[in-house]
Amino acid sequence: VTSDARGAPEQHVAAIVSRVRAVSAASAQAARTRSDGLLKPQGSLGVLEETVCRLAAVARSDRPAVPTCPAVVVAAGDHGVHTRGVTSWPQEVTAAMVAAMCDGKAAVNALAEAVGARVVLLDVGVATELPSHPLLRRVRIRPGTDDLAAGPAMSRDEACRALLAGADLTGVLIAEGVDVVVTGDMGLANTTASACLIAALTGCGAADATGRGAGIDDVTFERKRAVVAEALTRHRPSREDPLGALAAVGGLEHAALVGVMLAAAAEAVPVILDGIATNAAALVAAALCPDVVGYLVAGHRSVEPGAAIALDDLGLRPLLDLELRLGEGTGGLLAVPLVIAAAASHARMATLTEMPDVS
Amino acid sequence: VTSDARGAPEQHVAAIVSRVRAVSAASAQAARTRSDGLLKPQGSLGVLEETVCRLAAVARSDRPAVPTCPAVVVAAGDHGVHTRGVTSWPQEVTAAMVAAMCDGKAAVNALAEAVGARVVLLDVGVATELPSHPLLRRVRIRPGTDDLAAGPAMSRDEACRALLAGADLTGVLIAEGVDVVVTGDMGLANTTASACLIAALTGCGAADATGRGAGIDDVTFERKRAVVAEALTRHRPSREDPLGALAAVGGLEHAALVGVMLAAAAEAVPVILDGIATNAAALVAAALCPDVVGYLVAGHRSVEPGAAIALDDLGLRPLLDLELRLGEGTGGLLAVPLVIAAAASHARMATLTEMPDVS
Repeated sequence: VTSDARGAPEQHVAAIVSRVRAVSAASAQAARTRSDGLLKPQGSLGVLEETVCRLAAVARSDRPAVPTCPAVVVAAGDHGVHTRGVTSWPQEVTAAMVAAMCDGKAAVNALAEAVGARVVLLDVGVATELPSHPLLRRVRIRPGTDDLAAGPAMSRDEACRALLAGADLTGVLIAEGVDVVVTGDMGLANTTASACLIAALTGCGAADATGRGAGIDDVTFERKRAVVAEALTRHRPSREDPLGALAAVGGLEHAALVGVMLAAAAEAVPVILDGIATNAAALVAAALCPDVVGYLVAGHRSVEPGAAIALDDLGLRPLLDLELRLGEGTGGLLAVPLVIAAAASHARMATLTEMPDVS
Repeated sequence: VTSDARGAPEQHVAAIVSRVRAVSAASAQAARTRSDGLLKPQGSLGVLEETVCRLAAVARSDRPAVPTCPAVVVAAGDHGVHTRGVTSWPQEVTAAMVAAMCDGKAAVNALAEAVGARVVLLDVGVATELPSHPLLRRVRIRPGTDDLAAGPAMSRDEACRALLAGADLTGVLIAEGVDVVVTGDMGLANTTASACLIAALTGCGAADATGRGAGIDDVTFERKRAVVAEALTRHRPSREDPLGALAAVGGLEHAALVGVMLAAAAEAVPVILDGIATNAAALVAAALCPDVVGYLVAGHRSVEPGAAIALDDLGLRPLLDLELRLGEGTGGLLAVPLVIAAAASHARMATLTEMPDVS
């Protein structure tokens, strides 16, 4: 696809990508130098120090600001592949869970409150139309994707429009003061689409990328693996054409999350990833725009095997490994206090030269 | 040592031990049942669910209260074994760091502020006398221990008195409303004493229990291992006599932390462990009072190899593995938001039967 042949949405995507600058390696190094002079043995705060260096690279400062306004964006969509019997939960659960999140009843609400984060929901393609709600942004591109094992999940144009919905929402949130974005997802059967994207973009095998999602029996698991393998054989998606892969085997919520990441990176705001759906979206974002990876923090390593494969491919080490397999942004939210604590320790500790003399 | 032959401090220790009840397995099971009915796939919050069950067992309720008033107790003491050259930092750093903590300049201060915890310092045996300060409780049993490789680090009576200082302080904090206690330590050369305690109480080898502490070169490391082996050969400390082991090869701050744990358990308040010094103290507490383990949450797995050995022996799985090797309570503090989030999700999520019907 040449530039001239691209539709308007794809041109908008390219425009966002062009706004993403490489993070500053010099600022990361300056933060490391500062950290080495703080009142502790060098390196003794371990991964907190590495996290500060990432924040410094994003902020282009050796003293990145301590985040004060985190928000989790939960992108929701349904999946035509649900009809293949890849999960034991009915498709209606997607809409019901988004409604529960609007009501403040879900895990994401409780964890967001606990860590002081806003919850923002984005319907880019739930099968059932949802009523309006203050927490819910409705940009329904289509009522769920088509069955990715039978044909493309969606058109390239639809994928780009879902991506732009995520990017637009993120731009609004950042304008409102959000200074760290957690990515979350809701969509029955989306671990199947996630596995397809991860296999396509990392080159790993279908069986390796596929897990048991929210919990399925052996028969369903084998069926799910076969569906992923079938989709990969049919579409031959690859990292050379990430939007093509997204359209062929992805979900509308994956596309929206790619947009969230690109827009946050374009505004130099760090993004904390959650589980496998967000890891799969990160692979697409990185294939579109390698510089986006510098803006990403891996919050949690999902139980799903594809999640670790994706994070390894991205070169990201997760802050947490708590055996979560829920999505919704839960694992990402749990990492928010660690990111804040990393920045706070870096900002507030004294230097070794300020150690009191008590001799 | 028979009961009659015990000194008054040891009788006080026994009195605290006798007040520790076994946690409630029934409440843990009831919490698991409640968790299984919450608005998520069963088990999908992973280790958060296990943490809630621990809190439920402590609280004797299927819905443990969400902690609102965490405090970190940093027990400080010096070590006669410092003269053996087991660390590259001068002994004066212990006092200087306690002074820095009083001034709010250390990592523990920054992290405590970030997670909303109080900082309380306890001098049970810093070599240099420290001036009074509102954050510092001074119960200096002696100005540091003796060289544990040459003889007992302290007397049994001194170990008990340091233990009681930790217990007394913890009783005061709990009376003031503290509802979760993080254990922290400060004491140059205390990873040497920690390694001795861990080897003595788990039966592992001296070489396995000994690490590089705040960071030492190969020559110092070999010397440190030899010192630990020498102390174990000299004293033959064992889990059959935990107070004897504590007096022979422990530190005053270890003793105080044992008291913190016992007193918190006696009041049914959970304790979050930090790094190797607190893990070593937990082994002593557990040997004195096996029921104390139910009140402990492992916050972080220290880089020190002995830490993982101690936690395995206690049957505790750390919430975090961030390669910290600082002590001060830093790793324990970082786990506070996770413990709060676990309790909050359990308390606030709706049940599956409350899922909205959007069909």
